[in-house]
Amino acid sequence: MNTHFEPFIRHIAKLPGLGPRSAQRLLFHLLLNKSQNLNPLISTLQNLHDNAHSCSRCHNLAFHPPSEHEPLCSICLNTQRDNTLLCIVEHVPDLWAMENAGEFHGLYYVLGGALSTIDGIGPHDTHLGKLTHHISLYPKLSEIIIATSMTANGQTTAHYIAHLLKEFPHISLSRIAPGVPMGGELDYLDSGTLNAALASRTPFSLTSVK
Amino acid sequence: MNTHFEPFIRHIAKLPGLGPRSAQRLLFHLLLNKSQNLNPLISTLQNLHDNAHSCSRCHNLAFHPPSEHEPLCSICLNTQRDNTLLCIVEHVPDLWAMENAGEFHGLYYVLGGALSTIDGIGPHDTHLGKLTHHISLYPKLSEIIIATSMTANGQTTAHYIAHLLKEFPHISLSRIAPGVPMGGELDYLDSGTLNAALASRTPFSLTSVK
Repeated sequence: MNTHFEPFIRHIAKLPGLGPRSAQRLLFHLLLNKSQNLNPLISTLQNLHDNAHSCSRCHNLAFHPPSEHEPLCSICLNTQRDNTLLCIVEHVPDLWAMENAGEFHGLYYVLGGALSTIDGIGPHDTHLGKLTHHISLYPKLSEIIIATSMTANGQTTAHYIAHLLKEFPHISLSRIAPGVPMGGELDYLDSGTLNAALASRTPFSLTSVK
Repeated sequence: MNTHFEPFIRHIAKLPGLGPRSAQRLLFHLLLNKSQNLNPLISTLQNLHDNAHSCSRCHNLAFHPPSEHEPLCSICLNTQRDNTLLCIVEHVPDLWAMENAGEFHGLYYVLGGALSTIDGIGPHDTHLGKLTHHISLYPKLSEIIIATSMTANGQTTAHYIAHLLKEFPHISLSRIAPGVPMGGELDYLDSGTLNAALASRTPFSLTSVK
């Protein structure tokens, strides 16, 4: 085999979403035309390396040229955002998913992970410790939405946050709703989801149908 | 949306085997830990950029530090290879697949593509023009195996090669066999494959069963 190229393929194959075959295909694509395929990828990654940072405030990804200032993400820098609302998510992709959904216009706080007894992830392994400081930066906050995932770890984290935020009694706390996903068919759903959707049932009339 | 990161995601999403979602996941994985994930990938790609070349003889990929010498691949450099056999393939991954299969120990010639009237790929867009020169480098050659793919373009290319090699009447020419793939079930096969397998049927006895 091509022992010279195997370490490269093995490296690329370990990246998320790739395997040995797609890694080989990718490597070959990149080397087929170095100036058109490989060089732009190296530049892109180098550019990300130099300019992508964690937002010093909410821990979203921030695109920020290296400077003596602390990097802030486009959301924290945006004075048009609703500073009465804060949404807490586990990971940056969760924040991006919320932004793509387009209905939330408040601020965020990214935990960098959920609490997990199995994986030994405690509050100090996440940004939970700085959450109350973050909240104190926004005196107009009236509601905090906990949008951790609907998993055991996400639920544990939501409860932990609820305890943590007892010191802000003037801020109301909410949790995104569990339920049947749009387009979801009932007979494919687990009973946990179905029971949650049943418990969270809402009044229904002909006028409420959109 | 994260307009700053969108161009990066779009770039990564265009790579073969990746899409918008896996590109976003990959970008996030790389940025989650730059020194452990992003930096090694940049080094790997830079290393490939500097040291991976097309073999000046057979057009396989050669791992070769930049020097004044023409790059030669590990197969062309290997004096243990059987220089009475030459296998012609379309692309480098085809050569790698042959090497992985492990039964062929001769030399190769990579065309860099098959002839295609639809895509306007003529002999001059491939390495077909230098094939006879390559063959003349190996005076001990006794057989040339055409292992272009079993597609219309691959077959056309095989016929073109057969015409081209008329000037070497002392070298026998062969074509890899069409047939039912190992593990293949007949009712899932196209009739072209089935008819080819039928036409290429071989004598069968209890002693030939492996």
